[in-house]
Amino acid sequence: MRIAELSRVSGVPVPTIKYYLRENLLPPGELTSPNQASYGEAHLRRLRLIRALVDLAQVPVARVKDVLEGLDSETMPLHDKIGRAHRAITPQRQLTSTSAAREAATAQVTALINTRGWSIDPEAPALTTLIETLAALRTLDQEHLTDSLDSYADAVEKFTELEVAAVTSRPAPDEIAESVVIGTILGETIIASLRLLAQESISAKRWKALTDDQA
Amino acid sequence: MRIAELSRVSGVPVPTIKYYLRENLLPPGELTSPNQASYGEAHLRRLRLIRALVDLAQVPVARVKDVLEGLDSETMPLHDKIGRAHRAITPQRQLTSTSAAREAATAQVTALINTRGWSIDPEAPALTTLIETLAALRTLDQEHLTDSLDSYADAVEKFTELEVAAVTSRPAPDEIAESVVIGTILGETIIASLRLLAQESISAKRWKALTDDQA
Repeated sequence: MRIAELSRVSGVPVPTIKYYLRENLLPPGELTSPNQASYGEAHLRRLRLIRALVDLAQVPVARVKDVLEGLDSETMPLHDKIGRAHRAITPQRQLTSTSAAREAATAQVTALINTRGWSIDPEAPALTTLIETLAALRTLDQEHLTDSLDSYADAVEKFTELEVAAVTSRPAPDEIAESVVIGTILGETIIASLRLLAQESISAKRWKALTDDQA
Repeated sequence: MRIAELSRVSGVPVPTIKYYLRENLLPPGELTSPNQASYGEAHLRRLRLIRALVDLAQVPVARVKDVLEGLDSETMPLHDKIGRAHRAITPQRQLTSTSAAREAATAQVTALINTRGWSIDPEAPALTTLIETLAALRTLDQEHLTDSLDSYADAVEKFTELEVAAVTSRPAPDEIAESVVIGTILGETIIASLRLLAQESISAKRWKALTDDQA
């Protein structure tokens, strides 16, 4: 199909498609004349993947490129492909908590990891994010919100195991890689949405008509 | 303290503090001379809250303003304050899935909500996000990743109940509101980080040295 039809079928504007082509997120189409290219199902599929990462998971375009390069590599270990997916949804954080709060948060996370026997790269971006978030809660006098960390980890481990079982259910190795990477990134959006819905339901039942004074 | 000291203690650059003052995210300091204002502990605390929302939870500045207005209101029902927190971490999505995929995803989510007896506003942003994400997975031939939705919801409900218990443990009503709103937003960052760490640990054990062919 021509670019106009690719745009119509995918719902992605032509200038955006051209931008992805320039940035090598999308492979070039097959030239049918010096000024015209033709695009196939693989382009449509890739385009939909890009939009899901950008729109639903809010991944910056540069990180989308990292993720796709990982997916397309035939030699990169799967663990590294997953690492690219993790970095895509864990932006670098600036640090504004007090050092005492950060020290306490680091100790709490280290204890958690040791207790659970988790094998974690000390450079993992999610490790910094978790420590900084717990430190921020302490700095904001919300330390009580960090008390149940171990129970959260229990529940999180449960659905993570389910997720891993789902992504590894694919028959072909390259399908597993694609499924793991997409599942890692869009799975976060699913869990976050479910959490907000569960919370909204509890909130609606408890607090809908209440102001602070009545809560 | 003067603005330079507020900057030093908080780690936030002076121009950024001035920007927050102009945008009314931070209340003005107390004027000590026509050209000089003094800032107190309340400013430092508010500044840290702003940075935690912006840096750790990636909330856009305009949404931070919504959240803070909610927190400062003495008449807004708590449920609406929570709604502002939800919108802050659930950006509007563009829609690129096929309509058949969206229809199937809508049916799946409706069944989930009915089965669990959740009380959900049909306009809830997380509802759209969940449906669009499930539709995207179907469009990307990853429908098998949506099969365990109900088990995910089980696990999510568990830690959401723990979270609600934690935020409502505060003695004063305005402390509850603050704790609910901060917990809603930063709780997402905690859960997302824990999920990536749990996943990394599983991945490290299974796939660290493997390429696709060996997975």
